[in-house]
Amino acid sequence: MPVFEVRITLKEGIVDPEGENTKKTLQLLGFDDLKQVSFSKLYTISMEGSGETAIREVEEMCRRLLANPAIHNYTYRLIDEQ
Amino acid sequence: MPVFEVRITLKEGIVDPEGENTKKTLQLLGFDDLKQVSFSKLYTISMEGSGETAIREVEEMCRRLLANPAIHNYTYRLIDEQ
Repeated sequence: MPVFEVRITLKEGIVDPEGENTKKTLQLLGFDDLKQVSFSKLYTISMEGSGETAIREVEEMCRRLLANPAIHNYTYRLIDEQ
Repeated sequence: MPVFEVRITLKEGIVDPEGENTKKTLQLLGFDDLKQVSFSKLYTISMEGSGETAIREVEEMCRRLLANPAIHNYTYRLIDEQ
């Protein structure tokens, strides 16, 4: 059963409200050494079938639903094939 | 400048609405080989100072803000030390 990790990140220059708010709050809590926080979404996706077919399907999932091409980049990797 | 990746996952048995909704939508789109989707948050955190101090601070960030101990597990790793 192939398992993938899909990471959805914001493209360079796109505002990252979750990262910004987290950074501000951590600084208010006194973490003065903090320089930057950025936020990404991570989906762990378990599939049936062969790894090769599953890779094509995960690519299609990213394009059709998980990532918005206007603002997101995506990467994925096979983390388990059992 | 140490950079960490902090992953916030839901504990076993906690409902994962983002994962569930994503799974349902992907199935509606025709991805019939899909078995399971789970969602995690990923923070990339850049710090100033030494790696050792920064590790302690990141641990504290997880405990004080990033993870809710009632529902979340957290892991982190140093991904860059430059």
